[in-house]
Amino acid sequence: MTTIGIFVFDGAEELDWAGPWEVLSSWAQIWPEDGVTVFTMSLDGEPVTCAKGLRMIPDYSLTAAPPIDVLLYPGGRGTRGHLGDHTIRSWLQAERDRGTLMTSVCTGALVYADAGLLDGRPATTYWSALDLMTSLGTDIQPRPDDRWVDSGEVITAAGVSAGIDMALHLVRRLHSEARAVEVRRQIQYDPQPPI
Amino acid sequence: MTTIGIFVFDGAEELDWAGPWEVLSSWAQIWPEDGVTVFTMSLDGEPVTCAKGLRMIPDYSLTAAPPIDVLLYPGGRGTRGHLGDHTIRSWLQAERDRGTLMTSVCTGALVYADAGLLDGRPATTYWSALDLMTSLGTDIQPRPDDRWVDSGEVITAAGVSAGIDMALHLVRRLHSEARAVEVRRQIQYDPQPPI
Repeated sequence: MTTIGIFVFDGAEELDWAGPWEVLSSWAQIWPEDGVTVFTMSLDGEPVTCAKGLRMIPDYSLTAAPPIDVLLYPGGRGTRGHLGDHTIRSWLQAERDRGTLMTSVCTGALVYADAGLLDGRPATTYWSALDLMTSLGTDIQPRPDDRWVDSGEVITAAGVSAGIDMALHLVRRLHSEARAVEVRRQIQYDPQPPI
Repeated sequence: MTTIGIFVFDGAEELDWAGPWEVLSSWAQIWPEDGVTVFTMSLDGEPVTCAKGLRMIPDYSLTAAPPIDVLLYPGGRGTRGHLGDHTIRSWLQAERDRGTLMTSVCTGALVYADAGLLDGRPATTYWSALDLMTSLGTDIQPRPDDRWVDSGEVITAAGVSAGIDMALHLVRRLHSEARAVEVRRQIQYDPQPPI
């Protein structure tokens, strides 16, 4: 059994969490034999208003959510208020300490850096936030050319749409390349940017 | 001024609408001088539960929504109940008749086909739904290899993630290639599927 929690908050960038949600919940729904559960959670369980104005209703509050094996922390302007927040720092450090696989998309990596999770690790984030990320920790090695960086206990993805690629990598890492190929086909992910 | 309405409903596939939402609302928010407004709407304005279980709160009911210039109709298993629905057929035909640019993602094209909007046109949809789409109208020309098909008054996209590419095409068509390039950079859309 694998339980994946996607954290949402006011000012979370929509595609940061919705891209991985699509990948991971497709996996969970279409292959129930894999034993994957995916849900969303916010600090208090109340609806959140995302960075571009989308309102969504999380499945759980942090305290009501089941224990998780994988955390996904999206980015967005809402992350700025999380820097230096002791509640969030303590929660992230506790998840890390109990062995939760810590994943982020975009500027979610800033919050991980602020909590000390990226110290001594290679990592990436949104293209304009690489210097800020590096400044928030000790010996963080920025990887501006990587779509995502898997450093073992922590995986960070580049900006916004990179969460889709990172989530497919997660399916591969947690299950198999064959399953990741099937999930990719399920969401018809053959990107062709027109410009 | 350009007003874009994204239709949502129970069983709408999440990334079908969330991908275009990210593209189009980024355009609207970051370049207010372009005069673009984007919102979501459902039949009755009440929260919807999407295909993979995500709950979201639409901005408007259909009757309360401002007049739109562009409609985006996502797919998902929820579209099956829309086939043959007279309320939806009449609404779509009325939008078409008043010159609304009709766009769809994935199996949203099935509902357009059912309403007669694709008769005599090239079109695409989710890879497994091409035959069904063709059977729902007269002289619909399926384009299985196209990521999206722009037939002038109607634009149809392939499955799920194809809505991102189609939405960038929309930015280019409605504004400029330069703006579409900027929006693409904003969402760091340099896809690298890992498998």
